[in-house]
Amino acid sequence: MSANSLDNSTKLYDVIVIGGGPAGLSAALYAARAQLATVVLDKNFTAGALGTTDKIENYPGVPRKLTGAELLSMFREQAKSFGAHIVETPVVGIQSDKDLKQVMTAEGVYKGKTVIVATGSMGRSPTLNGEEEFMGRGVSYCAACDAPFFRDKEVAIIGDIKEILEEMDPIATFARTLYVIPKGTITSEQKQILASISKATVLPDHRVVRISGERTVTGVVIVDSEGNEQTFAVSGVFIYLHGNQPITDFLQGTVELTADGCIKVNPEDMSTSVEGIYAAGDVTCKKFRQAVIATAEGCIAALSAEKYITKRKGVRPQWG
Amino acid sequence: MSANSLDNSTKLYDVIVIGGGPAGLSAALYAARAQLATVVLDKNFTAGALGTTDKIENYPGVPRKLTGAELLSMFREQAKSFGAHIVETPVVGIQSDKDLKQVMTAEGVYKGKTVIVATGSMGRSPTLNGEEEFMGRGVSYCAACDAPFFRDKEVAIIGDIKEILEEMDPIATFARTLYVIPKGTITSEQKQILASISKATVLPDHRVVRISGERTVTGVVIVDSEGNEQTFAVSGVFIYLHGNQPITDFLQGTVELTADGCIKVNPEDMSTSVEGIYAAGDVTCKKFRQAVIATAEGCIAALSAEKYITKRKGVRPQWG
Repeated sequence: MSANSLDNSTKLYDVIVIGGGPAGLSAALYAARAQLATVVLDKNFTAGALGTTDKIENYPGVPRKLTGAELLSMFREQAKSFGAHIVETPVVGIQSDKDLKQVMTAEGVYKGKTVIVATGSMGRSPTLNGEEEFMGRGVSYCAACDAPFFRDKEVAIIGDIKEILEEMDPIATFARTLYVIPKGTITSEQKQILASISKATVLPDHRVVRISGERTVTGVVIVDSEGNEQTFAVSGVFIYLHGNQPITDFLQGTVELTADGCIKVNPEDMSTSVEGIYAAGDVTCKKFRQAVIATAEGCIAALSAEKYITKRKGVRPQWG
Repeated sequence: MSANSLDNSTKLYDVIVIGGGPAGLSAALYAARAQLATVVLDKNFTAGALGTTDKIENYPGVPRKLTGAELLSMFREQAKSFGAHIVETPVVGIQSDKDLKQVMTAEGVYKGKTVIVATGSMGRSPTLNGEEEFMGRGVSYCAACDAPFFRDKEVAIIGDIKEILEEMDPIATFARTLYVIPKGTITSEQKQILASISKATVLPDHRVVRISGERTVTGVVIVDSEGNEQTFAVSGVFIYLHGNQPITDFLQGTVELTADGCIKVNPEDMSTSVEGIYAAGDVTCKKFRQAVIATAEGCIAALSAEKYITKRKGVRPQWG
């Protein structure tokens, strides 16, 4: 047990944040600044979609290239400067009564008046050879985030053809050549769309053997249905293999999910189906995934939690 | 005519952003980084809700106190670094055809494929004596933003009692004493709520004569219904006098508004009722107003504009 969490069995927090990515740390910043007793339970300071990002240059207000881990550490220090308490521990379960939420971790139970779930969505384990090794060093899951880093470069896109077509625009804008390696069959309509992109070389019925490289990606090795291996020199590999499953397993049905497995929220205040539980960031479904969107949602969740706690304190007994 | 805008009569922009606050500049950053030809038309670099903020310390990722103008200038430089073109000029009107949007300014007409409206909501002119003089130097319109700067201080809250009750929680948390000066009558239920806040002194049937101070606010002078003047020493004055009217006059009915006069948007992609026109930031209605929420909305609007332009280019002719 870390010294940080010694008092967790007796202390009643105002806000327990689960997840220490941009959404969770932003929520902690706003909650702590509002004088709420706030703890962040983060399974791993260096994991997560932002934590594993090699460079980020489009977060508004931070006008330089930095690593995702650096940006996260800035968020973390800022939340701490307002008094938030940050503990590195995995959450294994949650229990919700109207007045008391209990969050079970490896180190004991945290008790709180409200919970903000910000566990993100990088639940899928890397399955391709080399995927984990080059994650954030050429392997990316976000075209809108990373395509500009591959200007005039060779790039491969691997995965579900529907997702590829949804996401490939920025890559088509920047890359010199695109190798499209769809999983499964593609329709004639999809073929036609791909054919209209002069930069794209489509390689149907191929399987990825491995992603290769030195410090960063330098190639992708694929094999056709007859077993012939080919290597393409690429500096980037974008992977769309159902990579963005929201992390909700520990919730075990506590809050309502969408058909896609995301936490269902009211976007106006980030409230879930359970009173006093909020969610923010990639664990909720959205059209675009960006760090700044996650931080904004964390802010909204914290301000909502503040309103909820104040109301229950009885300062406004007459209010619904 | 500034040198910057010399080519505006012939150039067709991909994205015309109206408004240079956090929403508009974030939209410009994401649009320009996606290689879209982007111009920001900003009526005044130092106006607006953020531009007139004296200090901000809660913008995630910028872990130091700075002025709103400094943060804005960071956003502006970042947008410019990706190629956005920023022009200081007021917009007077807009014309929208399916394929061409025309934005009328004092310096001529800008033509674009899409428009992002991010004009904010500080449309109301200061009406109280001293309000303009001390704006951002003790006069605030945002309790959630500025209340922590008034820890253990005396503070006055002026305005519509319903708005005051909605917004006063953070002030009640931080301030030592609260002088509540409601405009018009208050109900017995509202009186009861105020009575439950021990820090609050309610001054009904008073009128504000002036806000006084040196570099910053030091007092508020009020007069009762019988003409008796009183001065209270305060360091902060929060004003809720319908101060947040969204700025939409130049739209002259082009896009649909809500009953409150905000631009109606789909929060998923920030699209308005008109194809190719998006809105972001305080010009749309929302529960909480924070710079980080505005920047996130600007990001969403820009990524939506990118998708819209790509679709119309015919890269995906078959897509709805």
